Amino acid sequence: MRKVGVVGTGMTDFGEHWNRGLRDLGAEAGAKALKDAQLPGKDVEALYLGNMSAGKFVGQEHVAALIADQAGLNPISSTRVETACASGSAAFRSAYLAIKSGEYDVVIAGGAEKMTDLTNEQVTSTLVGAGDEETEGFAGLTFPGLFGLMAKKYMHKYDLPREVLSRIPVKNHRFGKNNPHAQYQNEISKKLVKKSPMIADPLRLFDCAPISDGAASLVLASEDFIKEHKLDPVWVKASAQASDTLALSDRDSITSIQSVIDASRKAYKKADVEVDDIDIAEIHDCFSIAEVIAYESLGFVERGKAKEFIEEGENDMGGSIPTNTDGGLKVGHPVGATGIKQIIEVVNQLRGKAYNQVSDAEIGLTENIGGSGATALIHILSK
Amino acid sequence: MRKVGVVGTGMTDFGEHWNRGLRDLGAEAGAKALKDAQLPGKDVEALYLGNMSAGKFVGQEHVAALIADQAGLNPISSTRVETACASGSAAFRSAYLAIKSGEYDVVIAGGAEKMTDLTNEQVTSTLVGAGDEETEGFAGLTFPGLFGLMAKKYMHKYDLPREVLSRIPVKNHRFGKNNPHAQYQNEISKKLVKKSPMIADPLRLFDCAPISDGAASLVLASEDFIKEHKLDPVWVKASAQASDTLALSDRDSITSIQSVIDASRKAYKKADVEVDDIDIAEIHDCFSIAEVIAYESLGFVERGKAKEFIEEGENDMGGSIPTNTDGGLKVGHPVGATGIKQIIEVVNQLRGKAYNQVSDAEIGLTENIGGSGATALIHILSK
Repeated sequence: MRKVGVVGTGMTDFGEHWNRGLRDLGAEAGAKALKDAQLPGKDVEALYLGNMSAGKFVGQEHVAALIADQAGLNPISSTRVETACASGSAAFRSAYLAIKSGEYDVVIAGGAEKMTDLTNEQVTSTLVGAGDEETEGFAGLTFPGLFGLMAKKYMHKYDLPREVLSRIPVKNHRFGKNNPHAQYQNEISKKLVKKSPMIADPLRLFDCAPISDGAASLVLASEDFIKEHKLDPVWVKASAQASDTLALSDRDSITSIQSVIDASRKAYKKADVEVDDIDIAEIHDCFSIAEVIAYESLGFVERGKAKEFIEEGENDMGGSIPTNTDGGLKVGHPVGATGIKQIIEVVNQLRGKAYNQVSDAEIGLTENIGGSGATALIHILSK
Repeated sequence: MRKVGVVGTGMTDFGEHWNRGLRDLGAEAGAKALKDAQLPGKDVEALYLGNMSAGKFVGQEHVAALIADQAGLNPISSTRVETACASGSAAFRSAYLAIKSGEYDVVIAGGAEKMTDLTNEQVTSTLVGAGDEETEGFAGLTFPGLFGLMAKKYMHKYDLPREVLSRIPVKNHRFGKNNPHAQYQNEISKKLVKKSPMIADPLRLFDCAPISDGAASLVLASEDFIKEHKLDPVWVKASAQASDTLALSDRDSITSIQSVIDASRKAYKKADVEVDDIDIAEIHDCFSIAEVIAYESLGFVERGKAKEFIEEGENDMGGSIPTNTDGGLKVGHPVGATGIKQIIEVVNQLRGKAYNQVSDAEIGLTENIGGSGATALIHILSK
């Protein structure tokens, strides 16, 4: 099967774009990605767009066609892909498989979400749609609530101190400070995290990713096209996806994420890499505890040993696998765009052009989950 | 590239399922399709689910994972695909490309929608999300309104009498009478159509597809798997997709659908067929005028000549291309399921097991559009 490479990246600033619509954000990101790839729009044959909930956020479905239209890409094929908070990665995977199938040579994988047009209460109610609405939603659980349950159980079972959990958002804000597209470009302290308002015990405000608007795009191309046009790609070494129960209550364990275990093992096998080979990783830190659990479910460290991994700085500059070097979801999480943004950061690192560059980064991984882990997508890329 | 075949079909009754949820409908259709294929669930590697607007209809996103979960298919890959009313066909196309890419051998393509939990006003407002919400929706246009504009212009430009337009729903209800899954299994008369309440001039109640709950599923498999397991497939000869502007006001013409012209010509080329080779077709008759315009955009007949095509019965039993032999959207249109249901009818015809069997049917086509035609998907199948 033929190889697929990423040849262009583009994204809007993540933040509150009160004066711009979903279509504007999507078209901006796509145009930037094409400019980066130095390819004209006419080379693009298809668009796959990750978006979780435009129907509820802005009253608009059919958003892939909307953005293809806005970007002047008609009559290409345009398709929205949705797996809740992992929609961006699912769009990337669709684009990857479409090229692998031989159907297309050049495809844009994008992601976009416009969340700030609603009140916080409406956003929280919309996001419950990523979990099991009939059981969890009906019972009054919110997403901070679901991850609060996971955090409570994990911290008790493995004796994780509040202070160690706080290191996750502190690290991510430190990285985010240098990222010009980040919604928040300020450092925070462990003291501030500890003093911030309680959202869903034990999670506090600074354990939580924000509500954001934004879009991100990648141009993918086939090996043949890349060679013919002498492009300089970052190769997709593996794409893997798995699912698990929507409701936390149906799972054997809530201190690990089975879909991440399943998808990551598939990805390592496909890419023929070991955890030791991975130089950098983008982790789905929708809440601080999600990043902690991901270290273990990805096999970066044994079950229950994330504390040591964090305390020894293995997730930070100079460590074995620096994570979320762009600041992660903590500094901006327009849901459908997040998976694409993660891959952009890995591409930046592998190109040696990241805002917080890890020296000699050769292999990068992204971990993107939907809901509380009913979906997981893992991608591994290399130069 | 390897061939892909359909080896199993299953669907729920289309109608008002007040006592069942989206997950129940989706799981029932999937289980029936696996039973028809005589394959165990463990052979399934991925699910692609077409769904337009579960977020607004039932407060639930992440619906592919929900249905994979309900059907006991975890930890397979599960992905929702959305192109408004063409979501079912887009899910089918995603499954087809995923198998072609070599990633999977057995994939379920499903579609499901649960629309009757809302009031009619809420449904109408939700469906506007398939068009351009910021211009058409903001101006107060509904979907009957958009197709009413197209009908008004077409009937004036090409002198199409009300009586000829009425023949479309009359034919489709006649076919639907024999379809045990149809929401409406009764014949209607041209007189009844003409006397039915005006919805959006010139379209009357019986020009419009109903609001429905329902789900439909197909099992697709690779040529290798089919041969190894000695299955009896219907082959996918072509899959093609195109997009156009969301807003009607941005188009050169509203008496044809450019995306259907673009996608069908691609499909004919891929399948190496001429219009004359097509024995049966499932047409997206969300409104009677949509079926009329489709005849021309698909090239079944010249622009402006649909009247003759209808009057000569070319679209009916014994004609050159009988259309909507299961009753079409007119007798049930759970939006995300429709594209899959269309392919099921083509498979039934090619297997010689249709409720209204066309003799010697060898090549069948489906035409499924999103919104007022911003998306079109065409599939061609044969034994």
